[in-house]
Amino acid sequence: MLPKPLRGVIPPMVTPLLDNRTLDLKGLERLVEHILDGKVHGLFLLGTTGEAPNLSYDLRHELVRRVCKQVNGRVPVLVGITDTVFTESMRLAESAARAGAEALVAAPPYYFTPGQPELVEYYTHLASSLPLPLFLYNMPSHTKVMIDPYTVRTLAENDNIAGLKDSSANIVYFNTVRHLLRDRVDFSVLMGPEEALGEVVLMGGHGGVCGGANLFPALFVETYDAAVAGDTARVRALQERIMKVGGALYGVGRHVSSFLKGVKCSLDLMGICGDFMAEPFSRFREEERSIIRSRLLALGANVVKE
Amino acid sequence: MLPKPLRGVIPPMVTPLLDNRTLDLKGLERLVEHILDGKVHGLFLLGTTGEAPNLSYDLRHELVRRVCKQVNGRVPVLVGITDTVFTESMRLAESAARAGAEALVAAPPYYFTPGQPELVEYYTHLASSLPLPLFLYNMPSHTKVMIDPYTVRTLAENDNIAGLKDSSANIVYFNTVRHLLRDRVDFSVLMGPEEALGEVVLMGGHGGVCGGANLFPALFVETYDAAVAGDTARVRALQERIMKVGGALYGVGRHVSSFLKGVKCSLDLMGICGDFMAEPFSRFREEERSIIRSRLLALGANVVKE
Amino acid sequence: MLPKPLRGVIPPMVTPLLDNRTLDLKGLERLVEHILDGKVHGLFLLGTTGEAPNLSYDLRHELVRRVCKQVNGRVPVLVGITDTVFTESMRLAESAARAGAEALVAAPPYYFTPGQPELVEYYTHLASSLPLPLFLYNMPSHTKVMIDPYTVRTLAENDNIAGLKDSSANIVYFNTVRHLLRDRVDFSVLMGPEEALGEVVLMGGHGGVCGGANLFPALFVETYDAAVAGDTARVRALQERIMKVGGALYGVGRHVSSFLKGVKCSLDLMGICGDFMAEPFSRFREEERSIIRSRLLALGANVVKE
Amino acid sequence: MLPKPLRGVIPPMVTPLLDNRTLDLKGLERLVEHILDGKVHGLFLLGTTGEAPNLSYDLRHELVRRVCKQVNGRVPVLVGITDTVFTESMRLAESAARAGAEALVAAPPYYFTPGQPELVEYYTHLASSLPLPLFLYNMPSHTKVMIDPYTVRTLAENDNIAGLKDSSANIVYFNTVRHLLRDRVDFSVLMGPEEALGEVVLMGGHGGVCGGANLFPALFVETYDAAVAGDTARVRALQERIMKVGGALYGVGRHVSSFLKGVKCSLDLMGICGDFMAEPFSRFREEERSIIRSRLLALGANVVKE
Repeated sequence: MLPKPLRGVIPPMVTPLLDNRTLDLKGLERLVEHILDGKVHGLFLLGTTGEAPNLSYDLRHELVRRVCKQVNGRVPVLVGITDTVFTESMRLAESAARAGAEALVAAPPYYFTPGQPELVEYYTHLASSLPLPLFLYNMPSHTKVMIDPYTVRTLAENDNIAGLKDSSANIVYFNTVRHLLRDRVDFSVLMGPEEALGEVVLMGGHGGVCGGANLFPALFVETYDAAVAGDTARVRALQERIMKVGGALYGVGRHVSSFLKGVKCSLDLMGICGDFMAEPFSRFREEERSIIRSRLLALGANVVKE
Repeated sequence: MLPKPLRGVIPPMVTPLLDNRTLDLKGLERLVEHILDGKVHGLFLLGTTGEAPNLSYDLRHELVRRVCKQVNGRVPVLVGITDTVFTESMRLAESAARAGAEALVAAPPYYFTPGQPELVEYYTHLASSLPLPLFLYNMPSHTKVMIDPYTVRTLAENDNIAGLKDSSANIVYFNTVRHLLRDRVDFSVLMGPEEALGEVVLMGGHGGVCGGANLFPALFVETYDAAVAGDTARVRALQERIMKVGGALYGVGRHVSSFLKGVKCSLDLMGICGDFMAEPFSRFREEERSIIRSRLLALGANVVKE
Repeated sequence: MLPKPLRGVIPPMVTPLLDNRTLDLKGLERLVEHILDGKVHGLFLLGTTGEAPNLSYDLRHELVRRVCKQVNGRVPVLVGITDTVFTESMRLAESAARAGAEALVAAPPYYFTPGQPELVEYYTHLASSLPLPLFLYNMPSHTKVMIDPYTVRTLAENDNIAGLKDSSANIVYFNTVRHLLRDRVDFSVLMGPEEALGEVVLMGGHGGVCGGANLFPALFVETYDAAVAGDTARVRALQERIMKVGGALYGVGRHVSSFLKGVKCSLDLMGICGDFMAEPFSRFREEERSIIRSRLLALGANVVKE
Repeated sequence: MLPKPLRGVIPPMVTPLLDNRTLDLKGLERLVEHILDGKVHGLFLLGTTGEAPNLSYDLRHELVRRVCKQVNGRVPVLVGITDTVFTESMRLAESAARAGAEALVAAPPYYFTPGQPELVEYYTHLASSLPLPLFLYNMPSHTKVMIDPYTVRTLAENDNIAGLKDSSANIVYFNTVRHLLRDRVDFSVLMGPEEALGEVVLMGGHGGVCGGANLFPALFVETYDAAVAGDTARVRALQERIMKVGGALYGVGRHVSSFLKGVKCSLDLMGICGDFMAEPFSRFREEERSIIRSRLLALGANVVKE
């Protein structure tokens, strides 16, 4: 069952692909076990890191079914249903519920830019139609709209809205939402960027949705645990290590897609799953791959491929 | 057959809906005839004005089939296939080709923001896979990326890329693309915002994709004809009338969606088709509707409903 | 005296410098005569092209005095007084009035971003305090705020506000302002980007503030005259030439400052004035300079230096 | 002398004004003592909170002289010299050095948007010309440019650049800069937004430049001290109080200027200094003032005026 509030490290899982229409099934199995071995507190499918908007719908449904079956209740599975089409969000939500997922996650529809009252209407309708609790997903760099802190507070009145994942990187926004909802002990506010996991949990926050936990899940869980224990020195040291990983692997390449390409390339080099990227993106070419490879080695990662 | 270059007024058709899952079939028939009666030079389905990103896929495919059948070759039909999912773009393109459409239109995938080299790769792959000629669609306010003029020039080398629709409203961008492609007499550069139709055609441009032509198609065709004839005085007078329509109907309401809601509300009041908006938007409420109504009357429109 | 409305080509003059604190006096004299020889309709000092925000105040005052004296009433001189400090705007305005300038130009204060009501208050206070008529200056890329069309209409009620220079490049904005002020025959609406001069005047607009007229003033005046005469074919040909100049000279270099550096470098190569740029910018280095040089030659310009 | 690295709470002081050209001298004296009574670690004049870009130059120089004299070495005084005019930055820097200030602070020139290499050139030239150490000031919402983390690292090589104040609110940016400069024990990285003071210091950061410390300086110093002591529970409680202050006082009014107006209005109600705002802004009117008043009372502040 979904803890209230949801706490801990909930990695946004990469989607292993063989090609634009086919899951990398062996890689997927390995990746799920690799992440769960890190003692994470949940698993988030079909987020930004999961390339969800670029995946065919059949693939999305298949991914949810397979992962829920494999996880089999060991941790709660959250499923991203962000879509510009309301009925597709609903269809995926129903699939997720049938498969045994625990919660859903939705960023605002992202072609047209809704106003705040339109967001309230949209999320209210969505949440009241869904078979599972909903997490709001603030992702202004990709959706062009901030879910205003007061909009979050209004929506938090809805019993079926269980939390917020904030990927804005805006610490004023994050702390303002936390402050406005300080009396809502069952409402989870999760930090997107892993660069701020430690401090946010030290301050009493609930946890993070850390992309790097695809690669090194235990590192993030240890950071979270140290922060919960109030072990400030250890949080600092571990967070420094998180920064080192990001500095090494996320900034190779010139485009916004560099983070995603770096994570997938690393997973491939570590023998966990393939690095195929869904259109419109392409995996790293040899030049970037060899940079990633040497950096992984420098980080002490278990590199098993060229 | 698709003229090369495509010239004239190609209205981006509104999608008449009964509800989130159902086309307003009678309204759709009336709307198509209403627009064609204006002697337009083409019809563009499933663009921004058509609320394409918010429509279920079944609906999109059904719309294309029905409209192509009804138009029956009287004008070329262009079909928007913009999607974050490559395979959905392809599926819709194949549907469009089977139904008898003449061309396709695609804005950049719009959740992740691609870099210019990624756009070149994407459009090159897309165009070479499509069964019909492709128009690029520059829509930075909704996709967060400009298709750089030099990217357009590179892509125009592709035989299957037939033109550009530019909805940026940036006149330096538009004129720069026209200048860079001045020797490509078969490549069509169309203006999105109707506020600039007249001047662009006076300067030798190919035409426009005018949302207001859903309401008053003949007004736009007359403006285009006057501009082709070099009748500057008449272009000024007609363009003034176009500005009047926009000033009256597009700015009621507070959100980005006001234009769409205003056009649909007007079409309903004129008895052409219903004003239901796909989620996450809602039709105008009574207050805005009565403003639109009195403004339509002031414009001399044929208002048949309360 | 200032014509109402002000019409024609009003070049935003480059500021010739020897160093950060010293005007290039000989270059300045030559530049003023070079521009006036082109039969322009006014001269605009201390705009964006004049690097005004980067010039010391002494330099700004000296420039205004010298140019007004040299122009000696041959054309109206407009002086930019944009500043974040109200009293500095006032002081420069008084200098300009004493020197014989005809009008002032002010963009919104540009560090803090004012709201529209704050803009109304600001411009109302400013205009009522100034000794000369004021032109509003819409420059959102540099000031982070659009002067809303309705704000312009409100401000146009003020007898001391004589017009608007719009450098947004947004043609919907420009035409909307023109439409809202269509009954104000004494209020001038001038186009910033030279890429749209011809079409805007063909449509009845008042003219343009064309940076390229520092280099080739007659080209812009001929374009304006052809447009006023309704000679569409000639406007197209001349505007094509304007695009060629811009394509050749404005895009060398990687930063936003490329336009300014390209114009100053060209003026230096043509023997008109030096290419020193005020801090924080630097003139083009040899590599860019040799590109500009060969392009100027290809344009048939009179290149007299290496 | 300036500690290396500078640590602690360095309030960005409000500038008390009687009118656009006159300092509120009595208010200024009271404000300086009020802030120093809170045991702050420095005082930052002429920042964004100080309305520096809107103050006349005479006023800026006078302010620096008076405050340095009054402070008389009790804490280091930092002086903002951000300007679009290089020579004005220099002139103010020399004034500050003569008056006894300890360091200077400069955001990028903010009308034109420089590229990163242009920023490196600018800051290198500036720092090597200045009589005092320089702090970089990252303020993208007002200057339109981020000082890239790698630009900061490059500039930190300069002996005369002593730190960075980051007001971006972007926690990924802040932590990335801290990570890149982890070996530079003498380089200070200070957090702008007070909403993140506690957590940043818990993580080993150097301190913050907290606007709210104009009102309640001791609250911020206590938060800083608790964080340095690693007293996580106390940091949480104090930071919650900081959020309460901000929630109460900074969001009254509709524009970006609301924060500044709220702080000045509060200081006036507390009898510390007047609430006059430099043009283009205006103080709160009666409606907003009475809201601020009742909220100050609810916060337990010492309100002495109506």
